[in-house]
Amino acid sequence: MKILLIGGRGTIGKKLAAALGSHDLIIAGRNGGDEAVDITSTTSIEKLFKRLPELDACVCTAGTGYYGDFQTMKEEDMLPGIKGKLLGQVNVVLIGKDYLREGGSFTLTSGVASEMPARNGTTVAMINGAVNSFVLGAAQELKQDKRINAVSPGLVEDSLERYGALFPGYDPVPMARVVNAYVRSIEGALNGEIIKVYP
Amino acid sequence: MKILLIGGRGTIGKKLAAALGSHDLIIAGRNGGDEAVDITSTTSIEKLFKRLPELDACVCTAGTGYYGDFQTMKEEDMLPGIKGKLLGQVNVVLIGKDYLREGGSFTLTSGVASEMPARNGTTVAMINGAVNSFVLGAAQELKQDKRINAVSPGLVEDSLERYGALFPGYDPVPMARVVNAYVRSIEGALNGEIIKVYP
Repeated sequence: MKILLIGGRGTIGKKLAAALGSHDLIIAGRNGGDEAVDITSTTSIEKLFKRLPELDACVCTAGTGYYGDFQTMKEEDMLPGIKGKLLGQVNVVLIGKDYLREGGSFTLTSGVASEMPARNGTTVAMINGAVNSFVLGAAQELKQDKRINAVSPGLVEDSLERYGALFPGYDPVPMARVVNAYVRSIEGALNGEIIKVYP
Repeated sequence: MKILLIGGRGTIGKKLAAALGSHDLIIAGRNGGDEAVDITSTTSIEKLFKRLPELDACVCTAGTGYYGDFQTMKEEDMLPGIKGKLLGQVNVVLIGKDYLREGGSFTLTSGVASEMPARNGTTVAMINGAVNSFVLGAAQELKQDKRINAVSPGLVEDSLERYGALFPGYDPVPMARVVNAYVRSIEGALNGEIIKVYP
């Protein structure tokens, strides 16, 4: 399969890239990889897909959101995450769907926060909930047997050191299970599924 | 109770206003009511709350989102709903929380589309999913025993004539049940609840 992985240099992306080694894998990201892309720019997304015809799968593990005090949080704090992890992923689908091969798939990334938000993480919760519901809608609409799913990971083991303090009491999830969820979406036949990878 | 109802002239708002008649009810909306407010403007929201000290409850039934062909949908089509039903409601909470009385409550509006999107309704699905997850996060963060819930109505009977064609096969929900859900959030003790009013 010819697979585009956006965010292939991130915590999950790196491990997923290693697991997809037998495929024709193209890694895209803001900072390096095979292809440069800024998912907050529709122009950048459009250019990326134009350079990559005949993709079988497009996976997005890019994007994050604001963590910070809810009492002082403002719309401005929320906007980068909305532009990135939410509308960035949405635009990858809205634009990319016209370039993907028949039967091709999208796999987006949401997260456990959609239903179990951490303190200070309401923005990320909101974004993840939005991504999940977008996937349910888009799955009904895609033509030519194209598919779309979201992987919703819990706190990944590999993120424990860097982000564990933000998620006190969250049981970590083995990265191997998270990677498997993406592989199941890419190589399986699922459509419109929120693949929850919780402890 | 002193209750602010934003969107009190809409399909649900009108009936809810009637049911809240025994309270000190202030109706706000873009087009008329007791107070003018544009929830896409943080300045307008801030001014509204400054004029209304000592509120016991703030209810928002305002805001809608794009319905249209997914194949040609663009980010621009999605933005008005994101600015209105999503960030409008979010800003009502982020700003209003500092004005509400101790023990006061917010009740936002999402909808069944978050988990059962209609054809052409992916934007609304996304917005509703986002509102639900925002409420889960915000409920943990509000201070002074303030509460927040979302009412997630199915296709309301009163909307059948106007919007029924957008929701083929959706069983309508009696408006009395939808109104009750808001009353339960306002007068009850619920917090962080997505009150689903499905058939």
